[in-house]
Amino acid sequence: MSEAFAAVEIISAKRDRGELTDPQIDWVIDAYTRGVVADEQMSALLMAILLNGMNSREISRWTDAMIKSGERLEWSALDRPTVDKHSTGGVGDKITLPLAPLVAACGAAVPQLSGRGLGHTGGTLDKLESIPGWRASLSNEEMLAVLKSCGAVICAAGSGLAPADKKLYALRDVTATVEAIPLIASSIMSKKIAEGTSALILDVKTGVGAFMSDPLKARELAQVMVELGTRAGVKTRALVTAMDVPLGLTAGNALEVRESIEVLAGGGPADIVELTLVLAREMIDASGVKPLMDPADALRNGAAMDSWKAMIRAQGGDPDAKLPVAKEQTVITAQSSGELIAMDAMKVGVSAWRLGAGRSRQGESVQAGAGIEIHAKPGEQVVAGQPLFTLHTDESARFERAMEALDGAVKISQTGEKVERLPLIIERIEG
Amino acid sequence: MSEAFAAVEIISAKRDRGELTDPQIDWVIDAYTRGVVADEQMSALLMAILLNGMNSREISRWTDAMIKSGERLEWSALDRPTVDKHSTGGVGDKITLPLAPLVAACGAAVPQLSGRGLGHTGGTLDKLESIPGWRASLSNEEMLAVLKSCGAVICAAGSGLAPADKKLYALRDVTATVEAIPLIASSIMSKKIAEGTSALILDVKTGVGAFMSDPLKARELAQVMVELGTRAGVKTRALVTAMDVPLGLTAGNALEVRESIEVLAGGGPADIVELTLVLAREMIDASGVKPLMDPADALRNGAAMDSWKAMIRAQGGDPDAKLPVAKEQTVITAQSSGELIAMDAMKVGVSAWRLGAGRSRQGESVQAGAGIEIHAKPGEQVVAGQPLFTLHTDESARFERAMEALDGAVKISQTGEKVERLPLIIERIEG
Repeated sequence: MSEAFAAVEIISAKRDRGELTDPQIDWVIDAYTRGVVADEQMSALLMAILLNGMNSREISRWTDAMIKSGERLEWSALDRPTVDKHSTGGVGDKITLPLAPLVAACGAAVPQLSGRGLGHTGGTLDKLESIPGWRASLSNEEMLAVLKSCGAVICAAGSGLAPADKKLYALRDVTATVEAIPLIASSIMSKKIAEGTSALILDVKTGVGAFMSDPLKARELAQVMVELGTRAGVKTRALVTAMDVPLGLTAGNALEVRESIEVLAGGGPADIVELTLVLAREMIDASGVKPLMDPADALRNGAAMDSWKAMIRAQGGDPDAKLPVAKEQTVITAQSSGELIAMDAMKVGVSAWRLGAGRSRQGESVQAGAGIEIHAKPGEQVVAGQPLFTLHTDESARFERAMEALDGAVKISQTGEKVERLPLIIERIEG
Repeated sequence: MSEAFAAVEIISAKRDRGELTDPQIDWVIDAYTRGVVADEQMSALLMAILLNGMNSREISRWTDAMIKSGERLEWSALDRPTVDKHSTGGVGDKITLPLAPLVAACGAAVPQLSGRGLGHTGGTLDKLESIPGWRASLSNEEMLAVLKSCGAVICAAGSGLAPADKKLYALRDVTATVEAIPLIASSIMSKKIAEGTSALILDVKTGVGAFMSDPLKARELAQVMVELGTRAGVKTRALVTAMDVPLGLTAGNALEVRESIEVLAGGGPADIVELTLVLAREMIDASGVKPLMDPADALRNGAAMDSWKAMIRAQGGDPDAKLPVAKEQTVITAQSSGELIAMDAMKVGVSAWRLGAGRSRQGESVQAGAGIEIHAKPGEQVVAGQPLFTLHTDESARFERAMEALDGAVKISQTGEKVERLPLIIERIEG
């Protein structure tokens, strides 16, 4: 049978709600990576998977096949266990920045491969790149050296890691096949398993500002990923957490680094500190390491800050350099007095994106200083005329559409009316 | 909004079970024809359409958009009304060959644009090309001239007719998106409406040898096509007819021409004659012409044969030339005695295909002489050792796989057991 015909047979099977066999999955991922299965065949298959689903065996095999398309890292040269965290992305979600050095300070090793942002949520690498001199791209040897010396490394995934996923992700982006749990789960987990971590904590965001706005879908995604990790021998847990309201008081690259440094200095917004500590304790526990200290102490006593500075320096950055500031600022004030009862994370995220903090297409550059400072959060009393947001951008022409995006983003009530909030930690799922 | 982004929005809408708007359909067909919407985007949309469907407004607009992608023929220069027939394809379905000249002899004009075969069903043009000298490709002016002089023309659709459909069809073929009623109906009807016929009779085949083996699906396809034709101002009717058993006693190119000539000479197998007359009467009635004679008379008195010979000559063919005969023959005999109670049309079609009568890919050549002669049909008594099939091919190496395809194709019973047969004409659907 010709290979082209085999592709049609596999697409037909999923189209007709059949299960794909292990050899079919292995072949189609390998043949797509080699260019034998064409983009138009893979996109038809992805749409059939999105609409007809895959069972857990199929998802697991699909993930394995993507891992096998590239190299797999391993950290046996380290003298302590590895643990990583992955967030599905949210507005103001800078948790990785204080978390990785914090967990390192407590005794585990954190080999964190991160990505750049696309759309309304920021990317960890974009944020760190606002630090003068900091480099995202490291060789495997450099990664190991940074991990050995600092206990944590945050860098870009090399091109050798799950190349099938890279090709598939670009295809999904232009064919409306991103939003499928089997495809999201296998994309995330193929990279995390190939990364070679022994333990993994997943932070699955839900609410209006998250990719998975429906909490039931977020739980399903979390369960599928925990199962994939566990099957692959990675100790995996997931927290489903709130993304109805932005995390912390900043959204944007340098702005979020500044806030992360406040947390590492023992300060920072309460929600960021709480989520950082919850995730740190999960990571330490999952890693099996006997912690050198309690994470809350590590934030207070400067140990986490020391790890941060060492990590930034090891990747060429100057942790004491002044962070970039956008050329233009404008302030948005409260239109009435009362209790601030809601703040739409999606609207804030889209506004920061439009200010230049995010990109619309892979490869676009972002502004280091662009983004939004938030001056009041839900639950606080505000008075008319008080600043609610400061918008930052290098190009003042961007203010108009950024302000449009914020239209209706906050609700202020004089009547004691309440808007239901998601709890910060909604659910915990263990393998 | 960039055009690439518009494509993602349209795919998402159908993925999420939404209705596509008229401007979305117009744009996506036009942009795909221009190459702005990529193959991988269109195939994802086609899979979403296959799985989530389109309503009648969407199918109608999609068909219109495909018609508008090219030219539209018109026949106002003729002194008689036009009527065409389309069959969805079956094994041994050579009805177009006697039918077009027969209807012309009775007074209507038949502008028949036909295709080549792919897979187990033959193509009308492949059959006619076995006649020495006959040309399938005519200019629009030549088509009109043949129609004026002979009353019927059977030729290939020019590249200017529904180019969007040509591009889509090639894509559907490699992405397992052929079997969707909205896509099948719009593909057929865009070409037939663009062809400019005033009336159209659809022969929708069902049963094991047909594309739509399920009679309920065949009825649905017939209804959708009749509605599309009617909306476009074409007087359209459909017959759902049997394709459980091969039509007539031959499957193959020159073999089917020979059988068609027998029908035009007043003989031929009873099922072919019956279906030809039923379709001829429908066509004459739908055309509105006052018939010059009854079709049964036109087969008996030579009028249909005269039209056939004139039509073949007008396209460069020699109607009296000896037809090609395959170099090799082998006979398959009955293994037992009894009543022949079933003959699987699909198995016979695949066997003829493997002998060289059909092609696996667009552009492949076919053997003029290859195919199968059938010596006994269901309902007949046979005795062990009596010939059931004669297989014809130019390459004796093909016999083995062709015989494998026939394995289990016939059932012979001594017990009076019956296999349920579809009636030749199952249903009639009018606009």
